[in-house]
Amino acid sequence: MRQPVSLAHACRLINHGPTVLVSSAHEGRRNVMAAAWSMPVEFTPPRVAVVIDKSTFTRELVLAGGRFALNIPCRAIADLTYTVGSTSGRDEDKFSRFAIGAFAGSALALPLIEGCVAWLECRHIPEPHSEMAYDTFFGEVVAAQADRRVFAGGRWAFDDGNAALHTLHHLGGGHFGVIGDVVQGHAG
Amino acid sequence: MRQPVSLAHACRLINHGPTVLVSSAHEGRRNVMAAAWSMPVEFTPPRVAVVIDKSTFTRELVLAGGRFALNIPCRAIADLTYTVGSTSGRDEDKFSRFAIGAFAGSALALPLIEGCVAWLECRHIPEPHSEMAYDTFFGEVVAAQADRRVFAGGRWAFDDGNAALHTLHHLGGGHFGVIGDVVQGHAG
Repeated sequence: MRQPVSLAHACRLINHGPTVLVSSAHEGRRNVMAAAWSMPVEFTPPRVAVVIDKSTFTRELVLAGGRFALNIPCRAIADLTYTVGSTSGRDEDKFSRFAIGAFAGSALALPLIEGCVAWLECRHIPEPHSEMAYDTFFGEVVAAQADRRVFAGGRWAFDDGNAALHTLHHLGGGHFGVIGDVVQGHAG
Repeated sequence: MRQPVSLAHACRLINHGPTVLVSSAHEGRRNVMAAAWSMPVEFTPPRVAVVIDKSTFTRELVLAGGRFALNIPCRAIADLTYTVGSTSGRDEDKFSRFAIGAFAGSALALPLIEGCVAWLECRHIPEPHSEMAYDTFFGEVVAAQADRRVFAGGRWAFDDGNAALHTLHHLGGGHFGVIGDVVQGHAG
């Protein structure tokens, strides 16, 4: 059900502010953490920003490996999302511990998370000051994929028939708002 | 229906990735624009990042005035949200043109937008490199308010009874996902 998403549409995958899972790898180690704080910063070339705290193992892997992936989880994996946001992978591999399925990204060989509905592989753009002062990491998207059941023709297609695949928006404490209706705004 | 939100809880107002309206003012000029791209970067002190394109009048006002507000719109004002995201305020005041109600912020005297459900007044933290390279502006929240019908006790309280007040999440082209259900994730 995965299909490639053109780089021109890649930023639409996170335009609406979903919680993401950041996956990373370097020299045989790998990790995945939840991050509520990410956003696009540019459509062309597609670039993103994500906040990665200094205490995290993910930060070590991103700095060492020079790459990270943003995986977009959905309602069906709310428990997994909260779990990987509540534990550290420094001492024990989370993929093994929680039986998390992963497949290799097509561009950067990053571990991408099964059960998500979109995936963005990003090259880290080193910005030491932003990383130190604001924990803010920038990256350029070099490949993207999405689940065609909920993202097609370059657009999210949330409807009642795919409710389990709707994106999660972290409110705090493991409570996630889920996208329900879609409304069309009309310009005055 | 507005009540102050403690600075300790301010970042929760945008933690779930809503589209925001950025309002600004300087020397008698004022503006409001929509921005899908914002995020918290730190809880304490509460700090945020927001992408403000080089072409915008808002950018001029933020750089000149040293402050901006993030206003969180809701389903009831989807049309207004799309409208202020589709027009420029450089040549004509959007508040007058579109009959947008505003009230003065308590901390920085910024124009805050009526009909929104939360408001964050921010001091701009100058970061010329991030602004130039990524259009990314940082700010520190110095005061916050929310509509108590939908944010109470430091938490969003989205339910069927306040559906018109649920936040908007821009999917592109004026289509907004609206938060529907709230699910509780359980940590494994």
